[in-house]
Amino acid sequence: MNDLHAFAQQQRERILNELFALLKIPSISTDPTHDPDCRRAANWVADHLKALGCPRVELLASESHPVVWAEGPNLPGKPTVLVYGHYDVQPADPLELWDSPPFEPTVRDGNLYARGATDDKGQVFAVIKAFEAVSGGGRPPVNLRFLIEGQEESGSKVLFDLLEREPERVEADAVLVSDTGYFAPGWPALEVGLRGLCAAEITVRVLKGDLHSGLYGGAAPNAHETLVQLLARLKTPDGKIHIPGLYDAVRRPSAAERAGWKKLPFNQRAFQRDEVGAKALTGLRQYSTLERIWALPTFEIHGIVGGFTGEGTKTVIPAVATAKVTLRLVPNQETKAVARQLTAAVKKLAPKWADVSVKIMHGADPVLVDTSTTPFKLIDQAFRDVERRGVVPTRSGGSIPVVPALGKRGAPVVLAGIGLPDDRLHAPNEKIGVEQVFKGIRVFGRFFQLMGGA
Amino acid sequence: MNDLHAFAQQQRERILNELFALLKIPSISTDPTHDPDCRRAANWVADHLKALGCPRVELLASESHPVVWAEGPNLPGKPTVLVYGHYDVQPADPLELWDSPPFEPTVRDGNLYARGATDDKGQVFAVIKAFEAVSGGGRPPVNLRFLIEGQEESGSKVLFDLLEREPERVEADAVLVSDTGYFAPGWPALEVGLRGLCAAEITVRVLKGDLHSGLYGGAAPNAHETLVQLLARLKTPDGKIHIPGLYDAVRRPSAAERAGWKKLPFNQRAFQRDEVGAKALTGLRQYSTLERIWALPTFEIHGIVGGFTGEGTKTVIPAVATAKVTLRLVPNQETKAVARQLTAAVKKLAPKWADVSVKIMHGADPVLVDTSTTPFKLIDQAFRDVERRGVVPTRSGGSIPVVPALGKRGAPVVLAGIGLPDDRLHAPNEKIGVEQVFKGIRVFGRFFQLMGGA
Repeated sequence: MNDLHAFAQQQRERILNELFALLKIPSISTDPTHDPDCRRAANWVADHLKALGCPRVELLASESHPVVWAEGPNLPGKPTVLVYGHYDVQPADPLELWDSPPFEPTVRDGNLYARGATDDKGQVFAVIKAFEAVSGGGRPPVNLRFLIEGQEESGSKVLFDLLEREPERVEADAVLVSDTGYFAPGWPALEVGLRGLCAAEITVRVLKGDLHSGLYGGAAPNAHETLVQLLARLKTPDGKIHIPGLYDAVRRPSAAERAGWKKLPFNQRAFQRDEVGAKALTGLRQYSTLERIWALPTFEIHGIVGGFTGEGTKTVIPAVATAKVTLRLVPNQETKAVARQLTAAVKKLAPKWADVSVKIMHGADPVLVDTSTTPFKLIDQAFRDVERRGVVPTRSGGSIPVVPALGKRGAPVVLAGIGLPDDRLHAPNEKIGVEQVFKGIRVFGRFFQLMGGA
Repeated sequence: MNDLHAFAQQQRERILNELFALLKIPSISTDPTHDPDCRRAANWVADHLKALGCPRVELLASESHPVVWAEGPNLPGKPTVLVYGHYDVQPADPLELWDSPPFEPTVRDGNLYARGATDDKGQVFAVIKAFEAVSGGGRPPVNLRFLIEGQEESGSKVLFDLLEREPERVEADAVLVSDTGYFAPGWPALEVGLRGLCAAEITVRVLKGDLHSGLYGGAAPNAHETLVQLLARLKTPDGKIHIPGLYDAVRRPSAAERAGWKKLPFNQRAFQRDEVGAKALTGLRQYSTLERIWALPTFEIHGIVGGFTGEGTKTVIPAVATAKVTLRLVPNQETKAVARQLTAAVKKLAPKWADVSVKIMHGADPVLVDTSTTPFKLIDQAFRDVERRGVVPTRSGGSIPVVPALGKRGAPVVLAGIGLPDDRLHAPNEKIGVEQVFKGIRVFGRFFQLMGGA
C-alpha cells in the first residue's frame, strides 16, 4: 500500500507525460481517415506493455484497429486477472466548443482535458501503471493478461470476431474493466448493470433529386419534413418510445435494488442544473431519474444529414434525409430483436410517398452482473484501503459492447472505473481528474496485490 | 426579325463561348467565401455592357455584391426599357449529384449544364445579346437601362437599399425581367404572379453542452428531438401549416384565372413522375396542384444543423439544433407579418425545457401584376413572331425579391423568361436549352424593336 502511494508520488511527472503522449493520438475509430492513428495508439500501448516486462505482446486481428494482447510474467499457482480497456476515442467535434484542442492535453484546476481522457485512455493507463507499480523486481503479484481494443466506440467487431475464434482468451479468475466512474467524488461505484446499444441510420427518400422550393413547394414531398413526422411519432414528448414490442422484454430492477439507489447521494436539482445543464429534465415521469437513465431503454437522435446545412440559405426541397439514432437497451432486451422492432416500426410509419430504410450500424447487449464473488469483495477492499469508502452498487446507462463476451468463460467481470460524473465523456471538454488517475493506480495495484493473496 | 435570326445563327459559337465564360464564375452570393467571385461576375457583366456601347456603366453600392448599372445610347423621344436580372447563383452542393462540375459549363443533348445556366445568367445574357443584336450602327431602337444585381439569391439587400435612396433608377416605360420560364416547350408564359419568401432559422437549445447519450439518455432533453416535435406540429402531413393567422391574408385567385389554368397543357401524372420525380404528390388535397404551387403559402425544411452528422456514429445528446426553413408567400401576405406570425407560433410551441429562437434571414413580398398595358401586348407580339404562339398568363411559385420595388414608379413589370420546366434551377444538373438562349435573343430583340415603334 505505502509502496503504491510512494510510486504515484515520486513518478508523478513522468507518469503524466506518458499519459499526455497517449492522449495526443487522435485514435477516432468511427472515422476511417483516423485508421492510421488507431494503429499508432495500438502500437503505443503494445510498446509500453513490452517495456514494462510483458514477455508476450501481440497486435491481433486487424490492420487498422488491432486488439492489443499482452501477458505478464508467468506465475504458476497464482490467479489470473484479465484487464480490458480500449485505446480508441469518440470523434471530437464540434471542435469550436473545446476550451483547449481535444488532442493537445491540458491541465487546468486539477483536471486533465483531452478527448479520451476519461473514456478510456486515462483509465486504461491507470491500470497499466498499477501493473508497473506492483511489478517490483519484474514479479507482479498475479498473472496478468491485457486485452486493449480499438473499436469500443464503433461496435468492437474485431474483438468480437477474435473472441468467437479464440474464446480461451477470456479465461481468467477476474476481468477488470476500468471504463466507468465514481457515483460522486469520494463515492467509488461498482457497475452491476450496463445498458446495451442499437445504433441505426433511418433514411427517407421522397424525390429523384432535390427541387426548387418555389417551383414545387406545395406539391412535392420534402424528405426532411417526412423524416421529422416519422421521428416525432417514434418518440413522443412524454418520453415514450412508440416501437411496438420494445418494452416487452424490459425487466424492472428489484425493489431492493431501487431502494438502494434511494440512499445514494443523488441531488436531482444539482443533477439537472449542474451536470445535465438543462432548464428541466425530460422522460417518463412515472419512473425515478436514476431508473430512467440506468434501467429503461432510450431513443436518441444524434444528427440529421441531408438537404442544405451550409452558410446562408438554399431554398431546396431535399430529396433524401437521414437520421443518425441510437437506442440504449436494458436487461433483458436483445440487440437483434430491438433492431427488428425498430425496422418494422419505421416501415410502418412511412407514408405512401416515401421510401424508408433502416441501416443497423452496430450494437451491444445490456449487462447485469452477479456481485457475490471474491473479486468483487477484493475490489471493494482495495477502494476501502485507498478511498476509506467501499464501492456502492450502481448501474450505468452507458454501454461497453464487449462486456457480455468477456464474462462468457465464467470469470466475474468487475466494472470499477475512476471517472467522475462531470467528466463529459463523448462531449467537448472531456476531462479526467488528475488525482483520480493516481488514485486509480493505487486502487488497481492494491486489487492486484489482494488477488495475489497479499 | 430576319436580322435577329441571322445574328443568332452566324454568331452562335462566339455567343456560346461568352456565356461559358460567365457561367464559369462561381458567384454564390449566400456564401461569403465567394464574395470575390461575385465581384468578378459583376465586372464581367459591366465590362461586357461597356464593350457593347453603353456610354455609362457603373458598379454601385457594394464592395462584394455590386449592382451593375448601365445605360444604352441616349435616344430622345424613344421609350425606355429597364432590364433587371442577377449575376449571382445558388450554392452548388451536393456536388456529387452533378454529372459534370457545376462551374464547368458542358453541352449535352442540346442543353447547357451549369449552376446559373437558367437562373439567371443564361437569361440575363440572352437579354444583353438581344441588345447587341438590335444595336446595329450603335443605335438601338429604344433607350435601355440595365440593373443587374448580385444578391437575388440572398435577399437583394444591396439593391433594396439602392432603390430606397434612388427610386428614380426604376423610372421607365417597361421593366423586362427574364428570370422565369415557359410553361412547357413551345408555350411561352407571362408570369402574372410570384410568390414571396420568408427565410428563417429556428434554433432550439436545451443543454449547456452536448452530453453522453448513455449516461444521460432518458432524463436529459435532446435538441434534435425537441426541434423535430416542434417542426412536426408547425406543418402536418396533410400539408396544413399551423401558424396562427398565416392563411388570413391569402387572396384566392379569381375563378376566371383558375379556369384559365385548367386549359394549360398540364399533365398531373407526368408532372409527378417526370418533373417532381416522386411516388406521390403531397399538399392540401382540396386545391389543385397548380393552385398549391402558385397561389398557396408553403413551409419547407431545407436542412437541420447540429449534433453529429459525420461518418460513423457519435452517441451524443445534442445541446443545440437549428432548422433552416422558408415560407413562400402569396398575395396579399406580407413578409413582415408572416415573420411575426412564424416567430410567435414557434415560441408558443416551445416546451418548458427549451430556449427557442427564430432568426429571420431575408424575405420577399409576393407579386401580382396588371397585364392590360402596352408592354404586355408587345412581349406577346414578340413571342408570336418567334414562337408562333403568344404568352399564356401563369404564375410562378418562385420568388424574385426585388420585383415589387421595380414596379414602384409605375412601369409595368414584364416577367417573361426563357427557361423550361425541367431546368432544375437550385438543384444539381441545372441547365438551359441552348435553343432557348437563341430564341430569347430573338424574342427580346424583337420586343426592343416593337417598344421602339418598329
